[in-house]
Amino acid sequence: MGISLEQAQAAVQAAYQKSLEIGVKMNIAIVDAGANLVAFARMDDAWLGSLDISIKKAKTARFFDMPTGDLGQASQPGGPLFNIEVSNGGLITFPGGLPIKDGSGKIIGAIGVSGDTVENDHTVAEAGSNAVAGQ
Amino acid sequence: MGISLEQAQAAVQAAYQKSLEIGVKMNIAIVDAGANLVAFARMDDAWLGSLDISIKKAKTARFFDMPTGDLGQASQPGGPLFNIEVSNGGLITFPGGLPIKDGSGKIIGAIGVSGDTVENDHTVAEAGSNAVAGQ
Amino acid sequence: MGISLEQAQAAVQAAYQKSLEIGVKMNIAIVDAGANLVAFARMDDAWLGSLDISIKKAKTARFFDMPTGDLGQASQPGGPLFNIEVSNGGLITFPGGLPIKDGSGKIIGAIGVSGDTVENDHTVAEAGSNAVAGQ
Amino acid sequence: MGISLEQAQAAVQAAYQKSLEIGVKMNIAIVDAGANLVAFARMDDAWLGSLDISIKKAKTARFFDMPTGDLGQASQPGGPLFNIEVSNGGLITFPGGLPIKDGSGKIIGAIGVSGDTVENDHTVAEAGSNAVAGQ
Repeated sequence: MGISLEQAQAAVQAAYQKSLEIGVKMNIAIVDAGANLVAFARMDDAWLGSLDISIKKAKTARFFDMPTGDLGQASQPGGPLFNIEVSNGGLITFPGGLPIKDGSGKIIGAIGVSGDTVENDHTVAEAGSNAVAGQ
Repeated sequence: MGISLEQAQAAVQAAYQKSLEIGVKMNIAIVDAGANLVAFARMDDAWLGSLDISIKKAKTARFFDMPTGDLGQASQPGGPLFNIEVSNGGLITFPGGLPIKDGSGKIIGAIGVSGDTVENDHTVAEAGSNAVAGQ
Repeated sequence: MGISLEQAQAAVQAAYQKSLEIGVKMNIAIVDAGANLVAFARMDDAWLGSLDISIKKAKTARFFDMPTGDLGQASQPGGPLFNIEVSNGGLITFPGGLPIKDGSGKIIGAIGVSGDTVENDHTVAEAGSNAVAGQ
Repeated sequence: MGISLEQAQAAVQAAYQKSLEIGVKMNIAIVDAGANLVAFARMDDAWLGSLDISIKKAKTARFFDMPTGDLGQASQPGGPLFNIEVSNGGLITFPGGLPIKDGSGKIIGAIGVSGDTVENDHTVAEAGSNAVAGQ
């Protein structure tokens, strides 16, 4: 189903290093092409409520093959996908979830990061995603 | 796991006294550092629907180590955390949930109060939280 | 809906005292006649998994107005109520849950206790139940 | 909250190495003292259904501070804890879940392993648990 454990762990490791670099405590989740968890790490003293959010971000990014924040723009009041968040057992549609592609550009999974501002969540997710795409 | 039963019951008792003082009927829930219930009391004739809300407020306050109302300011339409409420089995992001700290300032649990206006819910939660911090 | 908070707290207190007396660490839950939580206490270092079980025992005892262990005798393989446990969001049908009656014998709620052997769970539940019936 | 990410990842790594050694494909989950996920790894081509089971085994082992298989002996038809599995959102009570202790013998979390026979699941869990206790 796409991403290997080795690739998933490389994404976790890159996201972890980025978190240390910018001084944040994150929950980091990787799902495969089937949107099922492959690897996960919660940094010491990271927000407990971000555990579920990181996994939901990863699933959301794979469910719709786009950054979670993009989906959130369409789910606002008056938008075409208003309240889509209640589907699939709960989606998270703010930034911090990104598809993961292999070297050829094919989507093989997704990463979800939660634990700080959505900007920092996104930055850390990007570091994880890039680590696989660049291999 | 943080807060002791004795501390949790002291928080419930202080919140109960404050409720009597301002003439409201509350559900009062205390969770530990792991966001699991330690003590609970529902006053006679308090809203039944507030039972679940009080527990979710306490969990939410510990999940993100902040007052529930603070989270609610970021989860509005157009806000950075829109619809975060669908995560973690349901978050409550309006006032009435507060972290509980020990005398040294360390977060050891949280209190959630529901049964009246959010202002009164917050006031009662504060009384409970202060009872532990001041010990 | 039956039991008052004062009665519920008296049941918790009696169950707590009995727990100290026999040297066990319990989760103690009281529900009203509507099977909704009224009071709860988790003793320090009690099993975390017994939190949910104590609440489910209290609900089960009120759902069917009988000791949880009685129901369990009918839910065994080949019995008339085989696997009834999957109903109502999960029933617990081994000992530790008892209806609570007022002085006139009317059922006004239930107690659920979990944290040790089912025999000790039952003994502690009985102490809590008797504290209300005897008032 | 007990186990650190570093300890959790050491447990995952030791369990992974044991899995390679005996030629099995496992899901490996580590929870902290609050029974919340800290680290997870699913080996390539491991059973997908074992993902949830591995997490439930880890939670179950911490919920009752014992090997999951011990609980399963008491939850059989006619046993004192028949159908306890419906509590806590679903328990797994066959072997493969073990508490994790620190060097002093204190329980700081738990490991859950699923993907092969329960004997092999247990063997791999033991390798993970020992890696932390021995540190």
